[in-house]
Amino acid sequence: MALQLPAMEYRFLGKTGLKVSVIGLGSWLTYGGHVEDDRTYECLKVAYDAGINFFDTAEGYEGGKSETIMGKAIKRFGWKQQDLVISTKIYWGAHNGSRKDALNNQGLSRKHIIEGLDLSLKRLQLPYVDVVYAHRPDRHTPIEESVRAFNHVINQGKAMYWGTSEWTASEIAEAWRVADKLNLIGPVVEQPQYNLLHRERVENEYRWLYAEHGLGLTVFSPLKQGILTGKYNNVSVPPPDSRLAGDGKTGFINDFTANFGDQAWREALAVVSNLMPIAEELNVTPAQLALAWALKNPNVSSLITGASRAEQIFENIKAIEVVPKLTPEIMKRIEDAAQTAPKLDPLRY
Amino acid sequence: MALQLPAMEYRFLGKTGLKVSVIGLGSWLTYGGHVEDDRTYECLKVAYDAGINFFDTAEGYEGGKSETIMGKAIKRFGWKQQDLVISTKIYWGAHNGSRKDALNNQGLSRKHIIEGLDLSLKRLQLPYVDVVYAHRPDRHTPIEESVRAFNHVINQGKAMYWGTSEWTASEIAEAWRVADKLNLIGPVVEQPQYNLLHRERVENEYRWLYAEHGLGLTVFSPLKQGILTGKYNNVSVPPPDSRLAGDGKTGFINDFTANFGDQAWREALAVVSNLMPIAEELNVTPAQLALAWALKNPNVSSLITGASRAEQIFENIKAIEVVPKLTPEIMKRIEDAAQTAPKLDPLRY
Amino acid sequence: MALQLPAMEYRFLGKTGLKVSVIGLGSWLTYGGHVEDDRTYECLKVAYDAGINFFDTAEGYEGGKSETIMGKAIKRFGWKQQDLVISTKIYWGAHNGSRKDALNNQGLSRKHIIEGLDLSLKRLQLPYVDVVYAHRPDRHTPIEESVRAFNHVINQGKAMYWGTSEWTASEIAEAWRVADKLNLIGPVVEQPQYNLLHRERVENEYRWLYAEHGLGLTVFSPLKQGILTGKYNNVSVPPPDSRLAGDGKTGFINDFTANFGDQAWREALAVVSNLMPIAEELNVTPAQLALAWALKNPNVSSLITGASRAEQIFENIKAIEVVPKLTPEIMKRIEDAAQTAPKLDPLRY
Amino acid sequence: MALQLPAMEYRFLGKTGLKVSVIGLGSWLTYGGHVEDDRTYECLKVAYDAGINFFDTAEGYEGGKSETIMGKAIKRFGWKQQDLVISTKIYWGAHNGSRKDALNNQGLSRKHIIEGLDLSLKRLQLPYVDVVYAHRPDRHTPIEESVRAFNHVINQGKAMYWGTSEWTASEIAEAWRVADKLNLIGPVVEQPQYNLLHRERVENEYRWLYAEHGLGLTVFSPLKQGILTGKYNNVSVPPPDSRLAGDGKTGFINDFTANFGDQAWREALAVVSNLMPIAEELNVTPAQLALAWALKNPNVSSLITGASRAEQIFENIKAIEVVPKLTPEIMKRIEDAAQTAPKLDPLRY
Repeated sequence: MALQLPAMEYRFLGKTGLKVSVIGLGSWLTYGGHVEDDRTYECLKVAYDAGINFFDTAEGYEGGKSETIMGKAIKRFGWKQQDLVISTKIYWGAHNGSRKDALNNQGLSRKHIIEGLDLSLKRLQLPYVDVVYAHRPDRHTPIEESVRAFNHVINQGKAMYWGTSEWTASEIAEAWRVADKLNLIGPVVEQPQYNLLHRERVENEYRWLYAEHGLGLTVFSPLKQGILTGKYNNVSVPPPDSRLAGDGKTGFINDFTANFGDQAWREALAVVSNLMPIAEELNVTPAQLALAWALKNPNVSSLITGASRAEQIFENIKAIEVVPKLTPEIMKRIEDAAQTAPKLDPLRY
Repeated sequence: MALQLPAMEYRFLGKTGLKVSVIGLGSWLTYGGHVEDDRTYECLKVAYDAGINFFDTAEGYEGGKSETIMGKAIKRFGWKQQDLVISTKIYWGAHNGSRKDALNNQGLSRKHIIEGLDLSLKRLQLPYVDVVYAHRPDRHTPIEESVRAFNHVINQGKAMYWGTSEWTASEIAEAWRVADKLNLIGPVVEQPQYNLLHRERVENEYRWLYAEHGLGLTVFSPLKQGILTGKYNNVSVPPPDSRLAGDGKTGFINDFTANFGDQAWREALAVVSNLMPIAEELNVTPAQLALAWALKNPNVSSLITGASRAEQIFENIKAIEVVPKLTPEIMKRIEDAAQTAPKLDPLRY
Repeated sequence: MALQLPAMEYRFLGKTGLKVSVIGLGSWLTYGGHVEDDRTYECLKVAYDAGINFFDTAEGYEGGKSETIMGKAIKRFGWKQQDLVISTKIYWGAHNGSRKDALNNQGLSRKHIIEGLDLSLKRLQLPYVDVVYAHRPDRHTPIEESVRAFNHVINQGKAMYWGTSEWTASEIAEAWRVADKLNLIGPVVEQPQYNLLHRERVENEYRWLYAEHGLGLTVFSPLKQGILTGKYNNVSVPPPDSRLAGDGKTGFINDFTANFGDQAWREALAVVSNLMPIAEELNVTPAQLALAWALKNPNVSSLITGASRAEQIFENIKAIEVVPKLTPEIMKRIEDAAQTAPKLDPLRY
Repeated sequence: MALQLPAMEYRFLGKTGLKVSVIGLGSWLTYGGHVEDDRTYECLKVAYDAGINFFDTAEGYEGGKSETIMGKAIKRFGWKQQDLVISTKIYWGAHNGSRKDALNNQGLSRKHIIEGLDLSLKRLQLPYVDVVYAHRPDRHTPIEESVRAFNHVINQGKAMYWGTSEWTASEIAEAWRVADKLNLIGPVVEQPQYNLLHRERVENEYRWLYAEHGLGLTVFSPLKQGILTGKYNNVSVPPPDSRLAGDGKTGFINDFTANFGDQAWREALAVVSNLMPIAEELNVTPAQLALAWALKNPNVSSLITGASRAEQIFENIKAIEVVPKLTPEIMKRIEDAAQTAPKLDPLRY
């Protein structure tokens, strides 16, 4: 291929000995859903060939179809599991073929973690995943029950590690409390939203967890659902047919519902506008600047990116070349332009 | 169906993240025994369709036939295990094909817990149950041996949780002592008798365990073997051919043997008589009043009801509608009528 | 002394290496209160000289005066602490000189256990006691807090062992759960009421604790407040000016309040009547028969007796001679006469 | 006294067995500083006589003078320690007689916790305090070091319990992790700011800690530095000479610095304005309404109030009578008027 791609880089997943590509590929809403199968397989193949080894999915993505397609791709291309880092996430069990009101088919009970992962592995046609995440906190289930269940599936050989996604810092600390008390394995990685527009949790709330527990981060939405690409900069309201205009019902991404109003949208676009001159000066796209900026955070192990075309994957990978260009001076200019740095809790009062 | 049933309600099983229908279906003496197969399947189907997800059986029910029929029903109707909460209980091993007096085929030794559950799963045609209970305490076996054995079957994936049935409070506390000392899983649920005529254990003896260990309750005999339906109110002695007139040999239900005499029987019927006007005033059956009363206890997760006809299931489920009618005033009138509240140990002397 | 007393016997306090005289001397309501000082000192001296080494008191006895007198006696007679086993009990702090409503001067909070024992030691003029008991359970304080506090005073050198008094079996088991979990010292001894008229707790409820934890018993009320001496046998109602006719307010001994009525009183006296011929036949007093019967229970370490005159002490000690006379045949006759044996929970169902 | 005061009420300090008056008396900026000694002693005496048993101070209040005066008062009035709950807080060591910039005279190092508490006890002329708090988190010191040091002073008998003040939920969880791992005592109480204008931490961030660890709360600033009394309602800017107009340097109370601007001030006063009609209707002062509202939160053990005159204490205590007036309807009207309820994290997504 004529395309000049930088060599993939890899980082340890937090304090573990597992190495993941700094650019990962996620399958939320893309594979199994909006994108047809052929283009999906092409994306996966291109990613793998470009050195991406970290592929992230979830039982809740497209009712399980994302996992099914991932499994077919692995079979089709003959990939070996030792060359891959496959993660899935348990919380919202797929209800196909079972009762709609399946009460125990969601959340983090022992039953659902075990049953959910078994079904995921069946769809993935794999004996195990590398990382199984708790897709959200479940405050109806004692953390001890979930910690024990994740250790159970690890002991059964169905997962190598377990992590969390969008848990509060105190919940991660409680999980470690239980794990330490019981001599079990605690969560080694969090999967939070993190980008130039959403920073408080990663940069302040989790701050003490990195050194204390060696917490790693696999980041979702590093481009804030595309906003940081600049493609919405002439759009006055969140496109009503996109997932940006949440209905407030999902637990996901609803920063721009009517509740938050136009102000949040305008403020977000203003940040992008302010960043654009810096991107131009560096001769990179706004998206690459945003990804490279996130990679400057040493606590980030991988950025989970989405792609419905091979070109997007290439564009994202090129962000790796941008990282060394982000000198202290440039980083300061980014901060000045974005004005999104969270207020940090003091080290000592 | 023309029948107007209330929506099923669900509660967490004690502190676990597992949800069970507040009305469960048990199979003691009914399925596999007194009731023919066709009516059994109809009952199970009707219960499932009405939202019941908790089905309770035991290795000791009808020599294992109850489990066999439950397994066949799951297969016949194509139910998925993630939609069900199946429990069984180990203590009295089925003796078919082995020596009648099989010494090691009962109790809570490591050998019998493992062997017994394996045979139960075979009859149920399931890879695991959701809850395995110790059907009674076994004072010949160290609690540590039993705690370890229940954790063994959980670790083998053959059960999600374990519980006890009719253990004393101190035995449950000892089980937790051993579990805590060894970092193992303690019992999350007790299956006691509990009804308006039998309250001391649930309301006084276990009182400290609810907060301390998050103990849940799945109640058996919520209608006191039918006495609380009022159907015996004109019967002067316990019907000698019913299970009410125990021979004093079983560990089960022998409140009305010759030892206890006519007095206990007359006192029980008097309680029912006193409750009837309240039921009439609320326009519900005495049985519904008794079930709703039991559901008012927040420590109760599910009431295990029996049924040999579909109509009984419908009647029992309707008790859910009665719960909100039990205002503090009505609850006080029930107490005044029943006079069965246990004397509570003081909180501080 | 012309008096022919049997040699004192000693037993280990439960599984500990500490030896206590099988007849102990208690000071409830006697010393510091109803009995003048001179007679008190005589009793204590006589007891010591007769080989009694176990003296039991409590912060709550006569507002602390019992401890004060015990302390003075030890000083007066020059007794050495290595020759004594002194116990006190913490729960009802003495309020002399402090506010009546002293909220934190009772119960089993860390604060009261520490402060209460410090004040007890001051009154006793001792650097430590041998056993400190929790005089009752306190369900408002977590058992862990009390277990830690008792270990704290042990670590501070202010007590050698700790025990409980009138705790339920499950509370003792919970205390051991916490102690085992935290590698702390659990309660080695219980101080329950135990006599021919009050047996269920010692013989059934606690049954599993003796082997499991080596629980020892120092028994109070072995003569059931004098009823088992036979002195009330011609008294038709509990003497209203005695402590037998409780007002139902105290947490202590109120078996014979108006609530329980004459029936309990009559039944108790009937038991004594039935036992008298056996005592006569053995040529002992009913009291000695009752004490000897209690000492036949191998789980009993010591019987805490009261005395306002030296003669009573001698009478009680003579019970030691009666123990060997209680052959299996005699024991059976006692059971047949008393009909007070509790129904034992089955070993296996 | 002709004054008609309600009987003091007491609550357990979190899950401990220690009882504290629901109105406590704090000495921040008042005693030892702005208020002369005679008025101080009168306030303390009046508070004690009215049933207040919880007195809170800190090494950092007025360079230690607050503790000195508290100690003198206890001596002067002959109060007994078993009738008091005395707390102090360690973080900002008093610098009298040592170098101004004393580096190790602040924070939560083992050295400073031990040295600081020793000096506090000397000023208080007491052998121990009931509760010692970490006055703030110290992110330069490992939590394990602080947990061990607090346990050290407890084991030395210099404190009964320890707690935290203004720690994040994850720091409290980490402290429990360390304590559980090492079998040590964790923090039993937090001392946060909590009032109708400042609720997010107590009502959302800490939410999971109450059940998990039995965390208690002793609240400071229940009147938001007097704002909720309504006395500032005609004041257009925070009085520049009051502590309300922070310079942004202290870690304390700087909600109304220039950074936050007039808007925060105006919004706070608007809340008070909206609440006033409800207070008038109930015939209570705005301050009493605010205190009673805070006491409706069952996780609150005590409100630490300040007073420079006896009348203020009486006024605050009268809030106890207001609590029962806060019916669900009134509570809803307060919420509607204040509009300050935090958005709660979902229980299950």
